[in-house]
Amino acid sequence: MIPTQPAYPNKVYLNGDILDAKKAQISVFDRGFIFGDGIYEVMAQINGRFFYGESHIDRLKRCVNEIGISLDVEALEAAIPAVLEASELTGKDCLLYIQVTRGVAPRQHSFPKGIKPTVMMYAWPKNFPEINKAHASVVTMADFRWSRCDIKMTSLLGNVMANEYAQMNACFETLLVRNGLITEASHCNVFFVKDGVVYTHPSGPLILDGITRQVVLEICEKQGIPVRLEGIAAEEITNMDEAFLTGTSTQVLAIQKVDDHRFFDTTPGPVTQRIQEAFLELKRTP
Amino acid sequence: MIPTQPAYPNKVYLNGDILDAKKAQISVFDRGFIFGDGIYEVMAQINGRFFYGESHIDRLKRCVNEIGISLDVEALEAAIPAVLEASELTGKDCLLYIQVTRGVAPRQHSFPKGIKPTVMMYAWPKNFPEINKAHASVVTMADFRWSRCDIKMTSLLGNVMANEYAQMNACFETLLVRNGLITEASHCNVFFVKDGVVYTHPSGPLILDGITRQVVLEICEKQGIPVRLEGIAAEEITNMDEAFLTGTSTQVLAIQKVDDHRFFDTTPGPVTQRIQEAFLELKRTP
Repeated sequence: MIPTQPAYPNKVYLNGDILDAKKAQISVFDRGFIFGDGIYEVMAQINGRFFYGESHIDRLKRCVNEIGISLDVEALEAAIPAVLEASELTGKDCLLYIQVTRGVAPRQHSFPKGIKPTVMMYAWPKNFPEINKAHASVVTMADFRWSRCDIKMTSLLGNVMANEYAQMNACFETLLVRNGLITEASHCNVFFVKDGVVYTHPSGPLILDGITRQVVLEICEKQGIPVRLEGIAAEEITNMDEAFLTGTSTQVLAIQKVDDHRFFDTTPGPVTQRIQEAFLELKRTP
Repeated sequence: MIPTQPAYPNKVYLNGDILDAKKAQISVFDRGFIFGDGIYEVMAQINGRFFYGESHIDRLKRCVNEIGISLDVEALEAAIPAVLEASELTGKDCLLYIQVTRGVAPRQHSFPKGIKPTVMMYAWPKNFPEINKAHASVVTMADFRWSRCDIKMTSLLGNVMANEYAQMNACFETLLVRNGLITEASHCNVFFVKDGVVYTHPSGPLILDGITRQVVLEICEKQGIPVRLEGIAAEEITNMDEAFLTGTSTQVLAIQKVDDHRFFDTTPGPVTQRIQEAFLELKRTP
């Protein structure tokens, strides 16, 4: 299962203007271009509202603070309706991409003083399936990324290379292994199930604490599904009963195969299905 | 010793055009902006030639190969004289910045097929001192970067944050400590001297094998200065006799102070001076 080739959006919000996507340009001295010095968010509008939108905005606030960008988050939020309207997506199911970089300055590593952050946003239509019925094949590789993966930054070459490794193997994702343990995937979090217990790597500097990850943990708590916040050893994968990925766009996606190990043939395990159904209920809740 | 605020160059080369720096813009969908998906080089023109220019170009070739960018390096090299001429720097002492990103495509992590890399270059005047007589103060912090530091990539947020930490402490650089050992600094390599022996972290995935680093190792070999390619433990720094930084722009720079430890008051140690003088000779060699 390989994602379909994406397309450009029609419109792009850039520092207060809404532009045709092809005309949206930034200076080559934008620190997002020179240094990958920025952060991003992806939010899903489902049934007319941003699903856990406040959690995404809170994370955006935390991330700009972590890297010392002073951003008017309220102004950013206030601009979102116009982005959706320009894209003819008001109230419609879609994804919204938000990127904030430190701004434009002559190249020097340290933070320049007195510059304005660059804010870019765009939305594109997305038909979210009620339940993601795809069955993902994934591969594993060493997690060679930095150790501040809790910052949702745009310095993503490590994630890009890990994702390309999945594509090369005709897979959807790459599970990353650090110190012998599965941390997460290139743009998803990962969960395992064994004897009815759900396992996922604890939050902290080695993973991005995904909003969908948090939602799944809430679901487990409400449903009385026991959870252990522990990274699963790569060599223990074959002993697990089930595995699934989570992400804003991916939702809850059953993993059918990790490397050469197959978890199921036609139907994902019962805990994965139960969580997928509870996730669907949450999306329906007004 | 804090570097002076840099300025914009006059002209920028961008994909075959030479533009006023303020007009040089790229698409917001350039993967350099979205993902930090690119590599860079900085080369010094000294006494009318690029100092170890071939080594820089070789590294650029290696780095684009490492991340799967297909680049016409000969065309890039052929464009350099026009960049220098437009900047009125033909034959003059200057620095040349080269950045290559994977190109422009709708956002998806894996490598898009059939796109052209973005090539950006610019030059700015630089008066290289014969010998860098500055005395650097540096601080130490945990090396939290990825483990492919041998790739000179533009996903530099880790380096940017490490450099900012130096600035916050009114220092020139931050020495990075991984597994207890000093690897390198945020944009320099680092050397120590003890009992006449020169120490530096071995090349490999944990450091960027700087061209000036290589030149210093050549100097040591020619001068009969013993070298050990070993990372120095952070806790051993106070037992070292001398320390210095190397870099294309920095050249060979004596470290006066690491955290609270002072190596010298007015005059760098003899090995540092000897290497600085040999480095000056190399720059003079036609």
